[in-house]
Amino acid sequence: MRIGELSRRTGVPVPTIKYYVREGLLPQGELSSPNQAQYGEEHERRLRLIRALLEVGGLKVAAIAEVLGAVDDPAQPLHKVLGAAASRLGAEGGADDDAEAAVAHAAVEELLARRGWRASPANTAAEDLARALAAMGRVGHGAFTELLDEYADAAELVARADLGYVARRGAVEDLVESVVIGTVLGEAVFNAMRRLAHVDASARLYGEGGAVVGGR
Amino acid sequence: MRIGELSRRTGVPVPTIKYYVREGLLPQGELSSPNQAQYGEEHERRLRLIRALLEVGGLKVAAIAEVLGAVDDPAQPLHKVLGAAASRLGAEGGADDDAEAAVAHAAVEELLARRGWRASPANTAAEDLARALAAMGRVGHGAFTELLDEYADAAELVARADLGYVARRGAVEDLVESVVIGTVLGEAVFNAMRRLAHVDASARLYGEGGAVVGGR
Repeated sequence: MRIGELSRRTGVPVPTIKYYVREGLLPQGELSSPNQAQYGEEHERRLRLIRALLEVGGLKVAAIAEVLGAVDDPAQPLHKVLGAAASRLGAEGGADDDAEAAVAHAAVEELLARRGWRASPANTAAEDLARALAAMGRVGHGAFTELLDEYADAAELVARADLGYVARRGAVEDLVESVVIGTVLGEAVFNAMRRLAHVDASARLYGEGGAVVGGR
Repeated sequence: MRIGELSRRTGVPVPTIKYYVREGLLPQGELSSPNQAQYGEEHERRLRLIRALLEVGGLKVAAIAEVLGAVDDPAQPLHKVLGAAASRLGAEGGADDDAEAAVAHAAVEELLARRGWRASPANTAAEDLARALAAMGRVGHGAFTELLDEYADAAELVARADLGYVARRGAVEDLVESVVIGTVLGEAVFNAMRRLAHVDASARLYGEGGAVVGGR
């Protein structure tokens, strides 16, 4: 199909499609004449994935380029793909050597040992977790670490569900894509779900009227 | 303290502090002379909160301005504050009237009925959830709705832990701030935790070597 048809099918404007091609997010179409390219179903599918990562996953274009590059390159270890996908925890660094950072790192180490979780040193998740906890410590919420085991119970539930889903899908050729979609969009699903559950938990705890969350 | 001291204490450069004041994120200091302002502990605290929302929460400056405006205005219902905080699910809209959107909305309605969750119509979480599911449907993962109840179980665990934490803190004057911090930074904590749990669940399911997630 031509670029106009690709645009109609996906709802993505033609200049935006051209921008994605320039940025390396979308492969160039096959040239059928010097200034006309043909696009196929794999372009349509990739374009829908880009939009989903962008609009719902909240990833930036550069992060998407990195994630898709890793998806297309089987030599890349998967945790690197996922690390790129988890760009929300931007590697902005910041003061990472204060007391809060040390306390947070220790809390994460203890958590991993307590749960018997195997964490590969190449996986940035432990580091991201420590960074989030350190940030909480800096705004006076160091006690949030009390919740780590309850969060871990919930994370195990979700992870088992995710892995079961991937296993049921079976198809190996889109496995990496499935994992990326599951990680990025699954986060958006869980985050919205958590906010829904807050409203309900708050109504149960404080009664319909005086809910802490949902209407103060 | 002067702005230089505030900068040293928080690690935020002076021009950045001035920018936050201009954008309404941070209150102006008290003028001690025509071109010298004094800052207090509430500025330091607010500045740390801004950095945490920005760096770990991944919020944009405009979203932070909205969230902090709501935190400072008790007339604002809390779900609006949280809706603003959940900016990652940007209200970019997109084609929200296709078949996938209809299926996703129905799935969310059924979930709410099944769980007996009370959702206020003013809360955008149900809408955000439907949008995330619709996006998954558009990239060929409509079957992800199979996981909704497992996600909901996990979300209830987390929500109960969060509410218990807020109740234990007790202090009413920083309640709204606590809820905002818990919502935004708690998301970052859970998302990192889920990626850690993936590695472990994958190692258990597929063995150390052939892990689907964590090293392919």
